[in-house]
Amino acid sequence: MHKVGIINVTGYIGMELARLLHRHPQVKLASITGRSAVGQRLGELLPHLANIDLVIEPELGDVELVFSALPHKTSAEALLPILERGIKVIDLSADFRLKNARDYDTWYDFTHPAPQLLDEAVYGLVELNRSSIASSRLVASPGCYPTGAILALAPVVKEGLIEPDIIIDAKSGVSGAGRTLSLNTHFSEANENVSAYALDGHRHLPEITQELRKLNPGLSLSVTFLPHLVPMSRGILTSCYAKLKGGKEGVGELEKAKVKEIYREFYRGEPFVRVVDAPPQTKQTWGSNYCLIHPTVDVRTGKLIVISCIDNLVKGGAGQAVQSMNLMLGLQERLALEEAAVYP
Amino acid sequence: MHKVGIINVTGYIGMELARLLHRHPQVKLASITGRSAVGQRLGELLPHLANIDLVIEPELGDVELVFSALPHKTSAEALLPILERGIKVIDLSADFRLKNARDYDTWYDFTHPAPQLLDEAVYGLVELNRSSIASSRLVASPGCYPTGAILALAPVVKEGLIEPDIIIDAKSGVSGAGRTLSLNTHFSEANENVSAYALDGHRHLPEITQELRKLNPGLSLSVTFLPHLVPMSRGILTSCYAKLKGGKEGVGELEKAKVKEIYREFYRGEPFVRVVDAPPQTKQTWGSNYCLIHPTVDVRTGKLIVISCIDNLVKGGAGQAVQSMNLMLGLQERLALEEAAVYP
Amino acid sequence: MHKVGIINVTGYIGMELARLLHRHPQVKLASITGRSAVGQRLGELLPHLANIDLVIEPELGDVELVFSALPHKTSAEALLPILERGIKVIDLSADFRLKNARDYDTWYDFTHPAPQLLDEAVYGLVELNRSSIASSRLVASPGCYPTGAILALAPVVKEGLIEPDIIIDAKSGVSGAGRTLSLNTHFSEANENVSAYALDGHRHLPEITQELRKLNPGLSLSVTFLPHLVPMSRGILTSCYAKLKGGKEGVGELEKAKVKEIYREFYRGEPFVRVVDAPPQTKQTWGSNYCLIHPTVDVRTGKLIVISCIDNLVKGGAGQAVQSMNLMLGLQERLALEEAAVYP
Amino acid sequence: MHKVGIINVTGYIGMELARLLHRHPQVKLASITGRSAVGQRLGELLPHLANIDLVIEPELGDVELVFSALPHKTSAEALLPILERGIKVIDLSADFRLKNARDYDTWYDFTHPAPQLLDEAVYGLVELNRSSIASSRLVASPGCYPTGAILALAPVVKEGLIEPDIIIDAKSGVSGAGRTLSLNTHFSEANENVSAYALDGHRHLPEITQELRKLNPGLSLSVTFLPHLVPMSRGILTSCYAKLKGGKEGVGELEKAKVKEIYREFYRGEPFVRVVDAPPQTKQTWGSNYCLIHPTVDVRTGKLIVISCIDNLVKGGAGQAVQSMNLMLGLQERLALEEAAVYP
Repeated sequence: MHKVGIINVTGYIGMELARLLHRHPQVKLASITGRSAVGQRLGELLPHLANIDLVIEPELGDVELVFSALPHKTSAEALLPILERGIKVIDLSADFRLKNARDYDTWYDFTHPAPQLLDEAVYGLVELNRSSIASSRLVASPGCYPTGAILALAPVVKEGLIEPDIIIDAKSGVSGAGRTLSLNTHFSEANENVSAYALDGHRHLPEITQELRKLNPGLSLSVTFLPHLVPMSRGILTSCYAKLKGGKEGVGELEKAKVKEIYREFYRGEPFVRVVDAPPQTKQTWGSNYCLIHPTVDVRTGKLIVISCIDNLVKGGAGQAVQSMNLMLGLQERLALEEAAVYP
Repeated sequence: MHKVGIINVTGYIGMELARLLHRHPQVKLASITGRSAVGQRLGELLPHLANIDLVIEPELGDVELVFSALPHKTSAEALLPILERGIKVIDLSADFRLKNARDYDTWYDFTHPAPQLLDEAVYGLVELNRSSIASSRLVASPGCYPTGAILALAPVVKEGLIEPDIIIDAKSGVSGAGRTLSLNTHFSEANENVSAYALDGHRHLPEITQELRKLNPGLSLSVTFLPHLVPMSRGILTSCYAKLKGGKEGVGELEKAKVKEIYREFYRGEPFVRVVDAPPQTKQTWGSNYCLIHPTVDVRTGKLIVISCIDNLVKGGAGQAVQSMNLMLGLQERLALEEAAVYP
Repeated sequence: MHKVGIINVTGYIGMELARLLHRHPQVKLASITGRSAVGQRLGELLPHLANIDLVIEPELGDVELVFSALPHKTSAEALLPILERGIKVIDLSADFRLKNARDYDTWYDFTHPAPQLLDEAVYGLVELNRSSIASSRLVASPGCYPTGAILALAPVVKEGLIEPDIIIDAKSGVSGAGRTLSLNTHFSEANENVSAYALDGHRHLPEITQELRKLNPGLSLSVTFLPHLVPMSRGILTSCYAKLKGGKEGVGELEKAKVKEIYREFYRGEPFVRVVDAPPQTKQTWGSNYCLIHPTVDVRTGKLIVISCIDNLVKGGAGQAVQSMNLMLGLQERLALEEAAVYP
Repeated sequence: MHKVGIINVTGYIGMELARLLHRHPQVKLASITGRSAVGQRLGELLPHLANIDLVIEPELGDVELVFSALPHKTSAEALLPILERGIKVIDLSADFRLKNARDYDTWYDFTHPAPQLLDEAVYGLVELNRSSIASSRLVASPGCYPTGAILALAPVVKEGLIEPDIIIDAKSGVSGAGRTLSLNTHFSEANENVSAYALDGHRHLPEITQELRKLNPGLSLSVTFLPHLVPMSRGILTSCYAKLKGGKEGVGELEKAKVKEIYREFYRGEPFVRVVDAPPQTKQTWGSNYCLIHPTVDVRTGKLIVISCIDNLVKGGAGQAVQSMNLMLGLQERLALEEAAVYP
């Protein structure tokens, strides 16, 4: 059994990591820390995790690999000494996702404390970076929106099939905003309500563009990304729009079939991505690590439309981090992640 | 008091019409019909309308103006003899919205029974057609999606400020699908779920393009419209994307202010459209006849983004039909429609 | 026009008062204060109230009557000088509801600053205290739970038809907990969740027992009250259980009819209480001032069951306060309160 | 591997059985039937079950044990020939739960086709009937409401600690009403709504009284059971009220501790029942087989209050049926059932 730990287990990503790791047959969750609630039993604080017999500690214990579910800035600071102890790290904050250190000043309002590590850190989207994750000691696990958006667009971006202008319209459940209280996530305000936010630019935009451009540097992508809050706890549905190269009014069913085939080919053999024939629904991924993708073409306008669905806390958070962990520890990638979604 | 009637009062649009008309100071709801429940008191069937002392009748009584809340095809058939009786008509179905009779074969699977009326019928979007509505005997009240989309886009389309490719990504509450039972609108399926639908073309698309093109025939608009179902009862949030003419990466704050000014000017004096500075939320229009519009520019990509919010059953349904009625009866446009949204 | 004011307009009760008062034909909302947001336009802070052209002030202006939507303790303190200015007061906090000053130490953790006023204050449940409200200068508007519970039980308590043991099981929407942030009302926690709370005694219990006992001092009532939080924004459904005197297994349909008749008689002519034949649903009162009551008998066990429904922010809050105001200002009781519920 | 089957996999209970059985390490789901969708792949119909490679068949294949998720009446009819084939049966309908055949005429409107089997059938509440389930060939798996209610009350009923009058006020998510369409479960009607139903007697009442009386025949129980629908997909919270024998106003904290100790003792060692110190929330059991129980005493009135929580489709449905299956097949009781709840 490999011993692993979670830093900041008390947020939504942290508790979801605990839920998934507890069922892992070859990994032992050995140490959990919290920014509050130190000294409490996990099951006291979070009754759904009563089966996990651990106490929240002030400091990380002796482990082989650690997940950080700290907020950005705090996470990088906490992880530097841990890396020096030789512990492998999967960071679920944004702190090692961006390659350009100045982006942290621009988007996250802090100066990165260890810019030298940004090059080394591997972006933890397994479907794109499987082998480099396996050999890495520092994985930057993707944000929830980027996971849904990049998986939806990677095949056509890589193949260069679209014009550079992309619209990403994403709809997220409220847990994506975390457990920290705010008026926007107060039940009576968020319930029976839909809204767009971050119209001046969401922090996940540089991550999306960085990774998509890497797939096809010649494409000169221009990405508009608009997130929306919808009244549900979990799930992200991402609707992506781009003009097919050579696309015009009247492209036919043939084009649709061709696009679908490209997606099937791109994701062939992927354990957690399913290219589906019917438009997917977020609920079909509830609690699971699957990403459902439905590519199609608006034959009237020649536009590519791709819809993807994930559970923001699993494939968009804790689940894909565990997927990376499996690779980093030399384990089978699927372990602890094959549970079906809970529906309805 | 002007006497008016409602055909098919038992659906969501019909009951909302009854709610609004009952509070009208100069109009008397005098006759209601239903496809079921004939002979029942309205308040028995719909307890929230217990104050309305009317029985559901098999046939429309003696009225000056009638609202039809029948489904398409049935509505046109029912309205032809009523028009001949000299009764003014506001049809909330799609049956008189499209100018090209063949569109009914294509989009609604029936051959229109009275194509000669299509030219005469006035599209009941008061903000665009105020005076022709006032003098009309047959108003085709807009669909819920078109209301949100056209109001969001009319100013820039009319002014010719955008490139012809438009993306309309709309998120609707479930009442938009009506009161007829279906698995998609079964609580346990629709709750905690978001999905896109009608990817092969939604029936509201021809209505949107027809009305937008009318505003600027030279623009050669190419519209992609994708509706989504979100887990709430009421509300539509519409996110529209288009490239500003001359728009490019790096257009600045100036462009934003210019766009906002164009919207303010376009809707100056409109009683039910508010151009707002903060991104609006559907809940801010819950139960009310207001449409909130927030235009902005993605300064990174030169894209225009416009967000609009309505209550699909009021401004997107019964409310704007009453607004048309006020004009057709020579009454003050605001009557019975100025209630604030119920929040939270 | 009578000029009135609202102290602390920025909470849910405060903003609901503003919504209702703005539509009042004989009252002018002339002054609003807030604990935050002083200097802001109301419609800036609360877009759904954009039609109300008022700025949030630090101090109450010149008015004839004022509503306080402050929290308990703060409210009494703020109202004492206002009463001295000769302004009529409707307090929506608990500060003048209880007759026994020591109850404030026990249940609300503070020593009442003006115990001499407790006797004078009239409990603002119009259905029970109509005439004393009309002549009062200080009305203590009831809590949301007590409104639903007392209206459900008053007829049988007054008539002495039940044994003294009463169970009140209430289910409330989340807005009852107010606009102050807390983990329990964080969307992701409250959504898709039901729970009981305050099992050691809810602050509304002394209010319920005080008012019910007043109706029938000889009955020696013993009340168990358990509130529950359900995932919706508005509404309280209250299920009450008590043994009918002489009730036993096998009491028949006759008993049911008799009970219903007692309720109809008790509430005959009441504008806002409806005794209904079918079990009511909270949604049938959404946004309205109506209370629906359905009394029945479990013929197997001889138990009385009474279900009542209200909108906690209207009949259980702002609405019944306006009802009291109408009486205190000598106006028609129904003014500004007859809007139907918004359904669905 | 033991081969098992599901009759009528397409309802909510059926699909939940498939989800749980697919993860079972020692059981193979070998045959599934449906009343519709025969010939379709399961994953086509239910995308969340895409990993299960089975086609919906018209007839049950060769299995050792079968679950029936058919509606009542249909289920008994379908199971009789299957029992004759020597296949073990777990029936999730009500058809073998009641011991008195005439109760089927009274409560379910049909004459039982095999009254001789009612005595033999074992009520599948493992916590009460573990050993008889293990040796049975026909288990009647409990209804969702009875599961929550009986587990909440069994300890005090068995010990004879309460007076005979019991109130059970249950709040259920909408999936309890199944997948069949109805206006009550139409999203726009059920959302933002709470209501009581079946005030003349719910079908689960005879099941609750039968099993509770069996625990203590001398107690002459008189049970009032009132179910409520709340706007969430899953979960039942059951609030039970009864007078403690010798209970009176002023019983103290000692009584509370004593009651809790009785519950802890009664459920000691139970793998899926947790007696908890804080009032439980349905969400803490979401998707899991756990039942949380919180017993307490209203010290003001001497009333026992017990709150229990389950997921109606797991512990109240498919999960406890799998628990019975494990016993019937001689497997470890916990298998496939230890997953933590998915929270939030």
